[in-house]
Amino acid sequence: MMKGLSLLLSLLLLPVAASAAECLTRGTGDMGIVVERAAGSLKVMDTSAHAELFRVEGLGDLSHASAVYSRDARYAYVFGRDGGLTKVDILCGTIAKRIVQGGNSIGGAISQDGSLIAVSNYEPGGVKIFSAEDLSLVADIPATRVDQEKLSKTVGLVDAPDQKFVVSLFDTGESWIIDMSNPQNPAIQRFTNIGKLPYDALITGDGRYYIAGLFGQDGLSLIDLWHPEKGARLILKDYGKGDQKLPVYKMPHLEGWAMAGDQAFLPAVGQHQVLVVDHRDWQEKGRIAVHGQPVFVMARPDGRQVWVNFAFPDNDTIQVIDTETLQVIKSFKPGKGALHMEFSPRGEEVWISIRDQDEVQIYSTRTMELIKTLPVDKPSGIFFTARAHQTGL
Amino acid sequence: MMKGLSLLLSLLLLPVAASAAECLTRGTGDMGIVVERAAGSLKVMDTSAHAELFRVEGLGDLSHASAVYSRDARYAYVFGRDGGLTKVDILCGTIAKRIVQGGNSIGGAISQDGSLIAVSNYEPGGVKIFSAEDLSLVADIPATRVDQEKLSKTVGLVDAPDQKFVVSLFDTGESWIIDMSNPQNPAIQRFTNIGKLPYDALITGDGRYYIAGLFGQDGLSLIDLWHPEKGARLILKDYGKGDQKLPVYKMPHLEGWAMAGDQAFLPAVGQHQVLVVDHRDWQEKGRIAVHGQPVFVMARPDGRQVWVNFAFPDNDTIQVIDTETLQVIKSFKPGKGALHMEFSPRGEEVWISIRDQDEVQIYSTRTMELIKTLPVDKPSGIFFTARAHQTGL
Repeated sequence: MMKGLSLLLSLLLLPVAASAAECLTRGTGDMGIVVERAAGSLKVMDTSAHAELFRVEGLGDLSHASAVYSRDARYAYVFGRDGGLTKVDILCGTIAKRIVQGGNSIGGAISQDGSLIAVSNYEPGGVKIFSAEDLSLVADIPATRVDQEKLSKTVGLVDAPDQKFVVSLFDTGESWIIDMSNPQNPAIQRFTNIGKLPYDALITGDGRYYIAGLFGQDGLSLIDLWHPEKGARLILKDYGKGDQKLPVYKMPHLEGWAMAGDQAFLPAVGQHQVLVVDHRDWQEKGRIAVHGQPVFVMARPDGRQVWVNFAFPDNDTIQVIDTETLQVIKSFKPGKGALHMEFSPRGEEVWISIRDQDEVQIYSTRTMELIKTLPVDKPSGIFFTARAHQTGL
Repeated sequence: MMKGLSLLLSLLLLPVAASAAECLTRGTGDMGIVVERAAGSLKVMDTSAHAELFRVEGLGDLSHASAVYSRDARYAYVFGRDGGLTKVDILCGTIAKRIVQGGNSIGGAISQDGSLIAVSNYEPGGVKIFSAEDLSLVADIPATRVDQEKLSKTVGLVDAPDQKFVVSLFDTGESWIIDMSNPQNPAIQRFTNIGKLPYDALITGDGRYYIAGLFGQDGLSLIDLWHPEKGARLILKDYGKGDQKLPVYKMPHLEGWAMAGDQAFLPAVGQHQVLVVDHRDWQEKGRIAVHGQPVFVMARPDGRQVWVNFAFPDNDTIQVIDTETLQVIKSFKPGKGALHMEFSPRGEEVWISIRDQDEVQIYSTRTMELIKTLPVDKPSGIFFTARAHQTGL
C-alpha cells in the first residue's frame, strides 16, 4: 500500500515539480543569450550574476545568426542562416517553437507592437512575416523578379515606428517600406534605383533614417522615413571600396555603426580607419587610424566611448576610442576571434565573444579591466533582453 | 482511507500550488506599475494584455511618489512622500521589503549597476544610500548645514554613468556629484553657488548634462558631467518666473523635458507656452502656444511627437505637438486630473492617468485614438519596466 501511495504521489507531483524545476520565476531584464555558432546552440545568461542559466540545443545553422526579443523579454527569436526561425523560451531554457521558413535567411526583425516577426530570405528572395505568438505565416511578400528562375535577395531588414518594416533588394537595387498596421493587407512603398547592390542596412535609434550599404558602388543610400516623398539619396559618396589598396576581408556590418551625440562612427571599408560623420548633414568630418579593418564600431550607451573589433587577421584585438578627443585610449588583445560585443543597457559592462578561446569575456567600461570569463562553445552574437525595447535591434 | 489520502495529498500539494498561484512565471519586459496616490497602493499592469495583474497595498503616503526598477526588472523601488522606501516584487504582487528611511522624502535613483538605491530627503536633509538587495543602509550623507537646527533639503537626485549620483541642495544652492564606485567610501565633488534655490533637476538621457531648475532666480544651472572642472553655469537666463502676469500654479517637473533630435522641449514657467531649445548650445529658438501652463512635456520615444499635460485649471486637457513643424496637431480632453503619461518603450502607445475619473486611458500614438480604459483608484505616476535600462529614470 505504501508503495502504491508513494507511486501515486510521485505521479501526482511530477508535473508540478517538473515545471517548477525547469522554468524560472525571475525578472528577465538582466538576461541575454550567446550564440554557439558551431554547435547550433545557445546559452542563456544572467548578466547580473555573470552566470549561465541554460544551454538550448537544436537551432540548426547559426553562422551569422541574429536574434530579437518579444516585448515581454521572455522569448528570443533566433534567425539562422539555414532559414530556421526558432522561438526560445529563456525562462525555461526550451524551444517554444521552431520552423524552417526559407532556404537561406539572413536576418529578421520584430514589429513595434511585438506581434509580428519578419524574416528576409535569399532563397527564395522575399520577406515572410509570422505571428510572434505561434510562428504561423501572416504574409509572404515575394521580392522583385530578377529573371525567370529567381527573385532578388532581400537584405537589411529592420523594424520602424508605426508598425512598419524596411528592407532592401540586393539584386534590383530597391528599398521597400512595408506597413503592417493592417496585417491582412500589407501596404508596400517601393523605392527603386537606390544604388547598386545594397548588401546591408541600419536604422537610426530614433527610427528616422534608413541607410543601406552598397556593394556595387561607393556611397550609401539614405531614406528619411519622416519624408519618404523625398525618395532615397546617396550620401558619403567616398564611402566604399573605391580604389582600395588593401584587400577587403569582410564588408563591415552596418548595424555596427555608433551614434554618439551629433557624430556617427563608421567602419571604413577595407581600410584601417574609423570614419567620423556629422549625422545632421551626413558629411564626413574626420578619420581615426585604428589597428585593422574595423567590423563592429559600437558606442557605449552613453556615447562617451566607442569599442571597435577587426576583421581577420587582426581579429584578436579590441580598441576603445574616446568620442570627444577622437583618440584611441585603449588597445588590448583579448584573444583570437573577437567577433561580437554587447553592452549592458546602462553601459557599465561590455561582453565580448572570443571564438577561438571558447569564452565570453566581461569587461568594466569604467576601468576597462576584465571582470570575468565564461565558457561558451565558439561564441558569436551576444544579445541582451534590453533590445526588446529598442527600435531596429 | 480515501479521505486520509485526499487530505495527505492536499497537504503535500499545498505549498507548491500556493507558490504557483501567487507568483507569475513570465517575462517582465512588458510590465509596469500605476500609483494609487490616495490609497497608498499600486497596481501592477501587463502592458501587452492591457490588464491588471496585482494590487499591492500598504505603501504609505504616495502623493508625488516615484519609482525606479531593479536591473532584472522584477522589483520596483517606490519612493513615498513620507520617507517610505518600498521594494515591490511585481512578479508576486507583494512587498519584498519596506523601510521608513527619512521624515520627508522627494525621490530617488538606482545606481548604474543596480546595486544601490539613493534617496534624497527634506527632513533631515541629505542623501541616504541603501543596498538594493535588502535595503540595508550603505551610506548616510548629510547635506550642508543651514543653521543650528537644520540641514539643507536635497532635491533633483539622479543616477549618472560610472556609478555616480548627482543631487542639488535647495537651501544652500549647491550640486553634488557622489561617486559610489567604492561604496564604503563615497567620494563627493561639491559645486557651490550654482544658483538660488534649486528645486528640481534632470539628467539628459545620455547621462552627460545635469540641469537644475531654480526657484530663487531665472535661468537654469547646467553641469557638463564630462567636464566637471568647468563648474556649473547658468543657461536660459530668461527661463523662470520673472515678471509673470499669470499666477504660477505649479512649478513644472524638469524630468518632464523632452529631447527630440537636436531640440529640447521645456514647459515654460507660469505661461501657456512650451519652449524649444537647441540642446547643442542651450539657446532658446522658439515658443509654442499651448492650452495652459504645461506640467509634463514628454517626447514619444522616436522624438516625432511631444505630448503635453497642464496644471490646474487646465488639467483636463492633453495636447500633441509635431516636433518638426512645431504645430499642435491634436487637442483633446480625456478628463479632469490628467496627471501623468508614460509611453511604451518603442512608442506605439501612451498611458495617461486620469485621477478624477479613477482610470488610466491607453492611446495609440499613431491614430491618437483611445484603445482601452483601465480602472485605477486616483492614479498618478505610471512607471514601465523599460526604465530599468535607462539612465536617469
